[in-house]
Amino acid sequence: MKIIIPKGFLVGEAQDDFTGVTAFLCPRGAVGGADCRGGAPGTRETDLLRPEKMMDKVNAVFLAGGSAYGLAAADGIMRWMRERGYGYRTAGKIVPIVSGAVIFDLNHKEYHTPTAETGFEACENASRTPTFGQNGVGRGATAGKIRGLRYASKTGVGACTVKTAGVTLTAVVAVNALGDVFDPETGKIVAGAKANDGSFIDTEKHIVSGGLLKLFAGANTTVGCILTDARLDKVQANKLASAGHGGLSRAIRPVHTDFDGDTLFCLASGKKPVLNLLLLQTAAAYAVERAVVAAATEGAAYDVSYDESEEDSEE
Amino acid sequence: MKIIIPKGFLVGEAQDDFTGVTAFLCPRGAVGGADCRGGAPGTRETDLLRPEKMMDKVNAVFLAGGSAYGLAAADGIMRWMRERGYGYRTAGKIVPIVSGAVIFDLNHKEYHTPTAETGFEACENASRTPTFGQNGVGRGATAGKIRGLRYASKTGVGACTVKTAGVTLTAVVAVNALGDVFDPETGKIVAGAKANDGSFIDTEKHIVSGGLLKLFAGANTTVGCILTDARLDKVQANKLASAGHGGLSRAIRPVHTDFDGDTLFCLASGKKPVLNLLLLQTAAAYAVERAVVAAATEGAAYDVSYDESEEDSEE
Repeated sequence: MKIIIPKGFLVGEAQDDFTGVTAFLCPRGAVGGADCRGGAPGTRETDLLRPEKMMDKVNAVFLAGGSAYGLAAADGIMRWMRERGYGYRTAGKIVPIVSGAVIFDLNHKEYHTPTAETGFEACENASRTPTFGQNGVGRGATAGKIRGLRYASKTGVGACTVKTAGVTLTAVVAVNALGDVFDPETGKIVAGAKANDGSFIDTEKHIVSGGLLKLFAGANTTVGCILTDARLDKVQANKLASAGHGGLSRAIRPVHTDFDGDTLFCLASGKKPVLNLLLLQTAAAYAVERAVVAAATEGAAYDVSYDESEEDSEE
Repeated sequence: MKIIIPKGFLVGEAQDDFTGVTAFLCPRGAVGGADCRGGAPGTRETDLLRPEKMMDKVNAVFLAGGSAYGLAAADGIMRWMRERGYGYRTAGKIVPIVSGAVIFDLNHKEYHTPTAETGFEACENASRTPTFGQNGVGRGATAGKIRGLRYASKTGVGACTVKTAGVTLTAVVAVNALGDVFDPETGKIVAGAKANDGSFIDTEKHIVSGGLLKLFAGANTTVGCILTDARLDKVQANKLASAGHGGLSRAIRPVHTDFDGDTLFCLASGKKPVLNLLLLQTAAAYAVERAVVAAATEGAAYDVSYDESEEDSEE
């Protein structure tokens, strides 16, 4: 799968053995939106992304492990930005605008959580050729957790790029869902909760056929960011974040549960005019779906092929 | 003014010479809500307060200076809570639920912002007899900033307690508004932007009469928390946060502007049944109004008289 990081963005990853941070940097600012549909979100600076709020540019979006503790990653991202003079300027001060969401990956005895330093390091590592897979926020991600972690599948971060109507749209998603991941192109489960014999139990089918599962009292959450070089206003960026959730609905079952804090962001760097938002809404859902499948199928060793030259030649 | 911190809550303050944090602790959990009406908010963990989200208890709400940098205070509050075993328990881990909002008080050459340590210290200082005034988040607060800080009025944190229908409701508000503070009981400005001769210019009247002001490109924000011992569900807690904004509208003009991130929280500890929410909605608007006036008139030396014995005797 060929991935393009659209113009105006860098992607940084940092992790230890257990958890990590993926940061989408748009130092000069991008128009941002978000849609939080899961029942158990952990978020920071999402209010200012609503269309009626005045802040018209975001400097970074981050996705982090560590549950709510991971929201500390923003402190380091803000420091990195401020030291370089990036951020909203007011009253003689620079305030970087950094929004983000976290996943629950506290799967070990100790509390291994991203810190401000992890966020700072992700910025230091920022490039147009991130690795995804089990790096960054993907480090501790798993899916299919209805029977607990022991029967879950290892996942990670996936991405998918769509080029349509003269713009580039790339979805990056960290899959850490309670539900199973389906590939809608085949109708088959590609990652999920397993029976004792290692086969997928199919959580949804089990539930709708009246089966009773001993619910694992865990926490989950799928998070992602849709990057585009399109010129969008805030309402449109929020619409694309919403459209992206269609991709989650297609590829994860069940999704948006009370035990998932599913949240998608959208960042638009504004390099290219948009003639028809429908094309981008369609692309957003599709790209998120394929990013989910990539995160699930290639989570352990995600092979990204970058198409930098093509993108560079456009300018 | 007699202040009662309702049962189930402690209030902690920490500050340096320039900025600070006020934290409302409900270690055993309280039902929370929020309403963010200003155009330029800085917030953390507000999505989970929406009625449709599953998180039914919050462990703390914080109000901090430092603009978005001050959101780091939550990291320290989370650490304090976790070390004491307070928080949402899932998958063998404790995740304290800490929501909050910040004000812009970066009024000095250096960046003086609250840190995780300030949040931790506020928890260490928690009691049922906080000082308010210029302590905690009130340290750097000012109001009436249409002509810039030089012509603004010093304010701070104010509080007001109402007892109605067998429950106690206390609003605590940090006034850092762009607009002027009016006392609706007299119709007079009590803190606000001043003319060169030191008299209040009356920002609203100046604007509606067609006057042109050289707008100071600053940032502002009024934040607060309504504490009650009432037994509320999440929808009701959100409704009280909304009702509180009526108090801001009455006492601050203009308010909820694009340069204010005005956000109110509500925490309900659930000790007392509620027969009629109308009584509490009325009380919320009134208490917020009086808290704003108190923050403005007594911001520099706020004298709080506590009524602890009465409250204690109720149990």
